[in-house]
Amino acid sequence: MGKLFVVGIGPGDRACMTGRARAALDAADVLCGYDTYIGLIRDLYPAKEIYTTPMRREADRCRAALEMAAAGRTVALVCGGDAGVYGMAAPVLELAEAYPAVDIEVVPGVTAALAGAAALGAPLGHDFCIISLSDLLTPWLVIERRLRAAAAGDFALCLYNPASSRRPDHLRRACDILLDAGKSPDTACGWVRNIGRTGEERRILPLGALREEAVDMFTTVFVGSSATFVRDGRLVTPRGYAL
Amino acid sequence: MGKLFVVGIGPGDRACMTGRARAALDAADVLCGYDTYIGLIRDLYPAKEIYTTPMRREADRCRAALEMAAAGRTVALVCGGDAGVYGMAAPVLELAEAYPAVDIEVVPGVTAALAGAAALGAPLGHDFCIISLSDLLTPWLVIERRLRAAAAGDFALCLYNPASSRRPDHLRRACDILLDAGKSPDTACGWVRNIGRTGEERRILPLGALREEAVDMFTTVFVGSSATFVRDGRLVTPRGYAL
Repeated sequence: MGKLFVVGIGPGDRACMTGRARAALDAADVLCGYDTYIGLIRDLYPAKEIYTTPMRREADRCRAALEMAAAGRTVALVCGGDAGVYGMAAPVLELAEAYPAVDIEVVPGVTAALAGAAALGAPLGHDFCIISLSDLLTPWLVIERRLRAAAAGDFALCLYNPASSRRPDHLRRACDILLDAGKSPDTACGWVRNIGRTGEERRILPLGALREEAVDMFTTVFVGSSATFVRDGRLVTPRGYAL
Repeated sequence: MGKLFVVGIGPGDRACMTGRARAALDAADVLCGYDTYIGLIRDLYPAKEIYTTPMRREADRCRAALEMAAAGRTVALVCGGDAGVYGMAAPVLELAEAYPAVDIEVVPGVTAALAGAAALGAPLGHDFCIISLSDLLTPWLVIERRLRAAAAGDFALCLYNPASSRRPDHLRRACDILLDAGKSPDTACGWVRNIGRTGEERRILPLGALREEAVDMFTTVFVGSSATFVRDGRLVTPRGYAL
C-alpha cells in the first residue's frame, strides 16, 4: 500500500515547520509540489526525487502524487502554509476514491493567517473569517456575499490572495464592499508581505487607507472587528479578558 | 531589556510544535502558563523554572510573565494551539504599554481548527469562520449574531469551546441557530476530540444529528458550507478546482 502525505510546511520561514511535517518529508521517496514551495525545502533533501509543477496545474499535481503512491511509493505533496487551507488536501481527497490502495495523511501547518497575525500582533484574538479574494475558482459574487456576511457578523477578517497582476484592484473592491456594508473607515487593519521570508514588510493602517494600498499575491491582509485597536504599533483584537 | 515569547505549542501532539516554538522554549529562563499546557512540555525542561496558573487566571498569568521579563529575564508564555487564536497574545499586548522594557514576540502555532481539520479530511478547504461558543467573555447575542452571519455567508465553520459542564447545551443551541438561519440539516459536519492526544476520537455526521451530540471542552466542531461533502469517510470542502 502506498502512502501520500499532504504536508503543510508553514510560511516561508523554515523554523515555522512542525516536527510532524519534517518527519513526513524525511519519510518520503518523492517530494511533489508547486515549484515555489519545493524551492523552500529542496536543499534539505539534495538526494530525493522531486516532481514539480507550475502554478494552476493543481489537478495534475494531485493526480501525479496519487499515481506515484498507488505504485507503492511514499510521496509527500508539499503545500505552503497549511495543507487544508486553500491547499492540496481537498483536491487530493476529492480524487482519492480512484486510488483505494493509497493511504492519505493530511499534515497540518501554520497558515499565513496565523503567521501574519503574529507578525502584526494579535488581530485574530477573537472570532474571525478567512476569505480569499481570488476569483479564479470562485465567482466574485460569492466573495462579495462573504465579505458582506463577515461585516454583518463583525468578525475580524484575514484576506488571502488580495491581488495579482490580473486583478490589481480586488483589495480596493473588497474594502469598498466592507465600507458599504457598514464597517467604519477607522477600522484598524494591517498587512504583511513575504511572511517569514527575506524582505518581510508589514504595515498597520485604517480601512479607509487600506483601499489605496498596493498589495500583491505575497501579501496577507487583516481587517479588524469593531473591537480591534492599535497599541504600541501592534494590531490587537481583544477577547474580552478583564485586565 | 527583557524578552517575552508568547508561544503557540500546537495541539497536544508534540510533533505538531514548530521549530520556532521549540527554540523559544529552549531560550527561556522561565516557562509560564496554564497547568495543562505546561504539562505537555514540562518533561522537556526538567531543570527550568516553571510558573503555572489555573484556568481563568489569564490576566494574572500575563502580568506575571510581563513582570518577570521586565526584571530582565527571558520568559516563554505557553499557549495551546496558536498564541493568537483565543490565546494569550492579545491580553499580553493589551498590557504591554505598562512594560516598555519588554520585547514581546508572538510565535504562531497550529491551532485546533487546522489540526482537527486535517484529522477529518479538509473541511476548511475554502473560506471559513472560527467562532467560540463560550459565553464567559462574549455575550451570547454576539455569538448568535456571528453564527447567523456565518450561515448567511455560507462559510465553512469551526466551533471552539462547543460545551463545558456549565453550558452543556451550547452546541445544540448553535446548531438550532444555524438551521433556523437556513442551513440544511443534511450539511456535512464533524468533530474531533483530544486532537493529537491519546484517546483522539472523531466523527462525521449531518448537522441535524450534530445537535444531539455530547461534546466537551476538548472537542472541536466543524460545520460544512453548502459545498462540503463526505467522501471515503473524510469531510471535504472543495475550492473548486476542475479535477
